[in-house]
Amino acid sequence: MRFETYGRDSFDRDREPATGAELPIRVRSASDGFVVTDESDTLREFAHQLHRVDFKPSGASIEVPAGTLIREAIAQAGLSINLLCGGQGRCGRCKVVVERGNVKRRSVSRLTGTELEQGYALACQTLVEGDLTVFIPPQEQIERRIPSDETAGKPIPLPVQCDWRRNPWIRRCLVEITPPSLKDNTTCFERLKRDLKSQHGIEIFTASLSVLQELAPIVREGDWQVTAVLEMGTWMDDRIRPRLIDLLPGDHTVKCFGVAVDIGTTSNVVFLVDMLTGKLVGRAGEYNGQIACGEDVISRIIYAKQPGGREHLQRLVVQTINGVIERLAEKHGIDVTDIALMTVAGNTTMIHLFLGIYPEFIRLEPYVPALTHPLPIRAHEVGIHINPEATIDCLPCVGSYMGGDITAGVLSSGMYETDELTLFIDIGTNGEIVLGNSDWLLSCACSAGPAFEGAGVRSGMRATRGAIEDVWINVETCEPTYRSIGDQRPKGICGSGMISLLAEMFITGVIDKGGHINQALSTPRIRIGEHGPEYVVAWGEETQSKREDVVITEVDISNLIRAKAAIYAGFTVLTRSVGLDMADVERVLIAGNFGQYIDVEKAIQIGLLPDMPWERFKFLGNTSVLGAHTTLLCRDMRQEIVEIANKMTYLELSADNSFMNEFTSALFLPHTDVTSFPSVMQVLRNARRHSEKGSPE
Amino acid sequence: MRFETYGRDSFDRDREPATGAELPIRVRSASDGFVVTDESDTLREFAHQLHRVDFKPSGASIEVPAGTLIREAIAQAGLSINLLCGGQGRCGRCKVVVERGNVKRRSVSRLTGTELEQGYALACQTLVEGDLTVFIPPQEQIERRIPSDETAGKPIPLPVQCDWRRNPWIRRCLVEITPPSLKDNTTCFERLKRDLKSQHGIEIFTASLSVLQELAPIVREGDWQVTAVLEMGTWMDDRIRPRLIDLLPGDHTVKCFGVAVDIGTTSNVVFLVDMLTGKLVGRAGEYNGQIACGEDVISRIIYAKQPGGREHLQRLVVQTINGVIERLAEKHGIDVTDIALMTVAGNTTMIHLFLGIYPEFIRLEPYVPALTHPLPIRAHEVGIHINPEATIDCLPCVGSYMGGDITAGVLSSGMYETDELTLFIDIGTNGEIVLGNSDWLLSCACSAGPAFEGAGVRSGMRATRGAIEDVWINVETCEPTYRSIGDQRPKGICGSGMISLLAEMFITGVIDKGGHINQALSTPRIRIGEHGPEYVVAWGEETQSKREDVVITEVDISNLIRAKAAIYAGFTVLTRSVGLDMADVERVLIAGNFGQYIDVEKAIQIGLLPDMPWERFKFLGNTSVLGAHTTLLCRDMRQEIVEIANKMTYLELSADNSFMNEFTSALFLPHTDVTSFPSVMQVLRNARRHSEKGSPE
Repeated sequence: MRFETYGRDSFDRDREPATGAELPIRVRSASDGFVVTDESDTLREFAHQLHRVDFKPSGASIEVPAGTLIREAIAQAGLSINLLCGGQGRCGRCKVVVERGNVKRRSVSRLTGTELEQGYALACQTLVEGDLTVFIPPQEQIERRIPSDETAGKPIPLPVQCDWRRNPWIRRCLVEITPPSLKDNTTCFERLKRDLKSQHGIEIFTASLSVLQELAPIVREGDWQVTAVLEMGTWMDDRIRPRLIDLLPGDHTVKCFGVAVDIGTTSNVVFLVDMLTGKLVGRAGEYNGQIACGEDVISRIIYAKQPGGREHLQRLVVQTINGVIERLAEKHGIDVTDIALMTVAGNTTMIHLFLGIYPEFIRLEPYVPALTHPLPIRAHEVGIHINPEATIDCLPCVGSYMGGDITAGVLSSGMYETDELTLFIDIGTNGEIVLGNSDWLLSCACSAGPAFEGAGVRSGMRATRGAIEDVWINVETCEPTYRSIGDQRPKGICGSGMISLLAEMFITGVIDKGGHINQALSTPRIRIGEHGPEYVVAWGEETQSKREDVVITEVDISNLIRAKAAIYAGFTVLTRSVGLDMADVERVLIAGNFGQYIDVEKAIQIGLLPDMPWERFKFLGNTSVLGAHTTLLCRDMRQEIVEIANKMTYLELSADNSFMNEFTSALFLPHTDVTSFPSVMQVLRNARRHSEKGSPE
Repeated sequence: MRFETYGRDSFDRDREPATGAELPIRVRSASDGFVVTDESDTLREFAHQLHRVDFKPSGASIEVPAGTLIREAIAQAGLSINLLCGGQGRCGRCKVVVERGNVKRRSVSRLTGTELEQGYALACQTLVEGDLTVFIPPQEQIERRIPSDETAGKPIPLPVQCDWRRNPWIRRCLVEITPPSLKDNTTCFERLKRDLKSQHGIEIFTASLSVLQELAPIVREGDWQVTAVLEMGTWMDDRIRPRLIDLLPGDHTVKCFGVAVDIGTTSNVVFLVDMLTGKLVGRAGEYNGQIACGEDVISRIIYAKQPGGREHLQRLVVQTINGVIERLAEKHGIDVTDIALMTVAGNTTMIHLFLGIYPEFIRLEPYVPALTHPLPIRAHEVGIHINPEATIDCLPCVGSYMGGDITAGVLSSGMYETDELTLFIDIGTNGEIVLGNSDWLLSCACSAGPAFEGAGVRSGMRATRGAIEDVWINVETCEPTYRSIGDQRPKGICGSGMISLLAEMFITGVIDKGGHINQALSTPRIRIGEHGPEYVVAWGEETQSKREDVVITEVDISNLIRAKAAIYAGFTVLTRSVGLDMADVERVLIAGNFGQYIDVEKAIQIGLLPDMPWERFKFLGNTSVLGAHTTLLCRDMRQEIVEIANKMTYLELSADNSFMNEFTSALFLPHTDVTSFPSVMQVLRNARRHSEKGSPE
């Protein structure tokens, strides 16, 4: 399996099989009338018994059959719990305390001995075997640090050749309908068609049933003056076939909106656009509600396999998007039914889940998605609260791990029409990389793992308030200084903070090129913790909890090095596969929201980015939503993105031997081949000169 | 208003305004603190008071605010009551007995003095004013006498030029899909498209979301062999644009069904058709569930105006159709999801209500429907339980009172392609008449009223078991003999029985040409009843109730004469309007289920049909469902019916002075102008010769 080949994720999975390490099951004695030795038999026997589970602190109660997972009981009681790994027993985020009663723990590998003594259990791995009292600890609250409306009104650049007004997706036409008489008693619909044609030259091809249902009263309410809202054909139509999607009494021609949506695995971003002027009305974002069911796409796909899981995931993301749209609409005084079009960019899994498409085979070799060019649907088909008849158009993907977010990014970046050899990198849980120019586009995806997103790192967290986002270490004292988001007392370290910390530790010799902590250094910051050697970034008393130290462990460092190595190996293999060298790359475009916060210098120092002049790097921000915005307005660009998707060759790295070699070579700071990183070598030499400590060798 | 111009219906409405004849409202004395003298004020004051209504015999109870209509309370209590006139207080079928408590009767015109004394009230006209006990009498049970499955397997003739196999609506294709590999990891959907094209030459244009959602597991379940169910484009498409509406694992190419549906105001008929062979699998029918909300289209339109009324009517007819389809499917061992297409014929109002379209303006001058050419919809949009993605295609109408049932009838009759001057008559509540040939088609509708359907006639009933359907009267003794449906004890008289009875009474001199009962005849059968002179067809002891006599009153006769006069005037005006005479008509086609049971001789005798050689008459049965069946199979015929609808000129009789003249002339038996009825005159002369009684003059 592709995602189990690289990164920490897979190692954990191999070490901690969900079925291993089971506690002995209780066996009734023969005197009870039967003996049970097999778990499935146990389940069968107990299936008819109901047990009461009381939840604290909510006070909720539920009766469930013996053998029910605690997480199922939690869901049935209407409560929620984080299932970041999708309920596989891997992430350990669904810890609960069983205060009373009998349970069976399938896996305890995420729990310490102390925790087990205290009654901790993983809700996703623990079966109800009697009446229980279960304490659910407070779930991690997500604070927003997602593009908010503060940047609204900022003009969004569109490709120069984008003449969207010439052939718009949506038209709103004011029609003066001739009232009927006994001598001219043609139907309402025929009158509308006739007068629309004579007044605007538009011939209605079809109409939504819901519009026809209310047509007769609406034309009269408007005293035979109506606004016809027409979709002028989707990208699939090779000719204009106007569909009447709404009809309003009177003149409402000035209200015409659309939304461009980026469905990220972590966050969803919405642009609200005025379809008449092309102006951005507002933008807002929210964490994808699916996060509670898994941090990464693989966990979500696994969660989707459960009964009702797919529907639940779809509902969650739809709720998230609806929430953002409603917030934007309310803020700007817009009626959501005046939103007549929505374009969506997202990775292949997110698009599958948004559309409710069975995603399982995305994660299984040979990694075949159900489809990559989604067909246009209507908003009501998935429950998006805009005009129910509005089309939702999901942008095309290339393959299972090269989604519509990247094709949208390539469109938005303009790299498909330049002569310069361009490298496009979207760093996230998955690193997607595209190399090419106007002649060709080659792409690959590498599983970086969620380390840069804050998961799988002891003090890792998302880039929200209180996250350490930048660190400097004094080369002589090893004492750090740091900056946290919102200048709050620190709670943990986010992705950009980890890049910064790793670079500083490396440059100052706190760690060596293999990522090992130099325990010879005399500083209380370096110590042996529960998980081995670690470096204390912030003492407990400085933190928000005022208790727990913010640390980075050697295990964390190893995970981060794997993540950066995967990305570096990805673009190296891609470049080499076409007989080129990194030095040939004329521009490096860094996409993704996370990308914006990366310090190029430090990213080069750890070997995440190639060592080249800084001016060749360009940060593009969320190119996914920008691409969706372009296609929301411009029909020609929608055709262009199909061509981009068809043109993008995808290199499957799991079938590529050279990738594993490159990956292994990149498992050092900055790289085994230090000659590729001359600027870093220079910095290291300077640091050595200022330090009394040994070289980082 | 058109429907209030002719027929008994309108007379009643004029005589009995719903707001007239109110009982005095109770006024609280000034000592209570306030005095109320106006009904609306009363309602306002009492609005906050809740009263308990106990229903017998069900035992149900409900609390409602003062001022609630009893029929609303009945509905809220989950009980049902007949509202044949739609709740206008005209039909008198919603009688209840108020056994206890205060009510206010808005209208009592349908109640006799005795009934008022006994506490009877009309549920649709009576307001709750205190705690009540209300007795709901047993509601009329409808027994089936609708085309049942007994005739299944009978070949249905299709037009000779109907080569439906050449270009079918639906195709089911077995596709062997090449399994994917790492070297060929194209998506499932692309593989299906690719292999469908290479194996069947069909290019999928679009696909339903629900199919795409399950596509990945289905191809694997079928071990890469699937059956693709394709709709090859609707009648609106000018080229083949196949839509994937279903996908089944393995080979299911032999199951492909369609349904042709006739939505009559009174009854709904379904043909289940094998779309591969064209064979009729089965047929069944059921009374339209909307009957409880009104007998005729006008009552239904009025009912639709109430809050939730339109949705309720749609739900009722959809439930009826679903019930029939499910019965047929179960009987023939068919899965309803294998039904991939449905065509519907119905009058304009029925189509509006089936599709949930606002129907109000159909009944208001200038009688403009919302639309006449309904666009194809999907089954799930209206809740029809066949394949949810199947298209439902409602056949085109001509105008408010010339529906798709008639265009289907014209198609099915073949009159649009003959040289013979043909008169097509569909006798029902509305009489629809089409005159023409392959060159031209002229049509009109006349409101015959529901007399022939058994409504508005004292002993009238529908053509169900126990209905007298044929009568003979002894010219000397005036004693009748009769035949009832199912040879049961009689319960009442159905339409064909009334035609028969009227003709016999006329020929034997029991009534004169004006419809007056000859009270000079010495027979106990003729007497003065509560509603004036009447003739007893069956004595109480012969009947099913063993109590109530089956009678026909002069008022009934007057209603029947108005009904037949409207139809006769309709085709006379139609013929004259093109400068022709009835004698020029070469064929008379009688459509409609009711038509099948008419005795031509007797229908001529009362002047319902023109006096011409019997061989010119042809009974076609339910041409509406036959036309739907033809278009269900044949794409060319679907185009043909559009041309028929466009070609049919509609003559609006309410705008035609000559109609009123013709109608007045036809208010006699057989007609004012007896020279038009030579054969009837001959029969009358013969009858006189055999009788001692005076001439029917």
